Amino acid sequence: LSELRLRALRPLPEVRPGDDLAALILAALDGAPGDGQLLAVAHKVVSKAEGAVVALAGVHPGARAIELGGALGKDPRVVEVVLDQSAEVLRAANGVLICRTHHGFVCANAGVDASNSVPDAAAGANRDTAAAGGAPEDSGDGRDDSVIVLPRDPDASARRLRARLRELTGAAPAVLVTDSFGRAWRHGQCDVAIGCAGLLPLDDWRGRADAAGRELRATWLAVADAIAAAADLARAKDSREPVVLVEGLQRFIAAADGPGAAALVRPLAEDLFR
Amino acid sequence: LSELRLRALRPLPEVRPGDDLAALILAALDGAPGDGQLLAVAHKVVSKAEGAVVALAGVHPGARAIELGGALGKDPRVVEVVLDQSAEVLRAANGVLICRTHHGFVCANAGVDASNSVPDAAAGANRDTAAAGGAPEDSGDGRDDSVIVLPRDPDASARRLRARLRELTGAAPAVLVTDSFGRAWRHGQCDVAIGCAGLLPLDDWRGRADAAGRELRATWLAVADAIAAAADLARAKDSREPVVLVEGLQRFIAAADGPGAAALVRPLAEDLFR
Repeated sequence: LSELRLRALRPLPEVRPGDDLAALILAALDGAPGDGQLLAVAHKVVSKAEGAVVALAGVHPGARAIELGGALGKDPRVVEVVLDQSAEVLRAANGVLICRTHHGFVCANAGVDASNSVPDAAAGANRDTAAAGGAPEDSGDGRDDSVIVLPRDPDASARRLRARLRELTGAAPAVLVTDSFGRAWRHGQCDVAIGCAGLLPLDDWRGRADAAGRELRATWLAVADAIAAAADLARAKDSREPVVLVEGLQRFIAAADGPGAAALVRPLAEDLFR
Repeated sequence: LSELRLRALRPLPEVRPGDDLAALILAALDGAPGDGQLLAVAHKVVSKAEGAVVALAGVHPGARAIELGGALGKDPRVVEVVLDQSAEVLRAANGVLICRTHHGFVCANAGVDASNSVPDAAAGANRDTAAAGGAPEDSGDGRDDSVIVLPRDPDASARRLRARLRELTGAAPAVLVTDSFGRAWRHGQCDVAIGCAGLLPLDDWRGRADAAGRELRATWLAVADAIAAAADLARAKDSREPVVLVEGLQRFIAAADGPGAAALVRPLAEDLFR
């Protein structure tokens, strides 16, 4: 197996709605990526390029948002956006809303980030400590005048970004869109995959044999999430480095876009923790 | 920030109780590790070297193990070992026991693996698909005559391994002991940290400022878990490669052993999902 190598690209400029994110990434890359490479992209720049930003001035909180905002000490307008992004609120406690988004992701505040003039330095701030535990300094307090939401369909975002990279360079590296999620029983956040294209999201060894010919009865690796977590280690949290180039994962990369990160979402019927 | 690089060491020989795991690792490394490097070690070889293996012939299942084994289709002797390793059984369904171990880890079958003659090829098999969902081919069916349990104190295991590496080479790389855990709301497993020494397990940016001088209100990175997940990407699942060498993480590595992976365990009082 070849060595696995990860490095953060140079900072991107401030990303605005309608920007050609692929072109910005290529400029930061200093050259064309290879087909066998992967670009891990923090979702915040994807959301910004897609205009997935909500100005709080235009948000009129409903009764539930006002009630939850009061109980949690959160700006009711931010809570209204969180509710709009959520299929279900699983928990509301300690200043945190743990939500299942319309995509099926379970995360704090439905992935809604306070906006800021720095596109990605604060990626994951404002809600991730949050998940399943929460810290008082958490999030969504409305000090900023807009919030960033998750891309509507992050797998489609990844496919579009990959297609545009192919259009501009002829090469089609795999694309992974990431966010930082808290975890149920463990402190801290890890980046996970919320969208991908050209990447096998799960490596299924169930039923296959190991090196000694013995059947591996249940090994099912969340490859896309492991790559997301790895990519986050390659960037400094205090710099604008939303994009990480990953090499050495050819065995998980394909010409076809594949099922995307949607394949990582456990269906509600299989959730043992409801 | 420097590039992050990971590579699996050559396969280790079969590890037996009392083996000098540090010496086996150094032989596979072809040289001495550096102080700024990290060795990620799949727990199975640590457990084997420490004799954390239970022969099922000597296990006499109690009434609860017999009842659960019958309900789940599991060998009651394996269930007895799982119960012995558990502080609490959170769920028992779909052939899976989701347990909180005495260490505080929440995982399928309390981290008990079916043993086999291959030390690590099947690491994570038998229970990880398991967590919070479970596959019918899961685990603990007693076809093997012994099971491997988690090290009693994986942080102490990491410290001992690090001390022995220092003794043999003069260098003290960070040591990370990993296992594959399932996740509550996502398919597949990712490797996580169950023990570490010389590594900052959590990087706390809460309250610190970002590149633009704006306060990051809640970013708390589970560094040790991200490294564990990354390391698993560097090895092929069908080979005996329990040890991965990681370079480029100097900023998280210290001379002092530090708090260990115990710092990643969310206290019961903060668990929102009980």
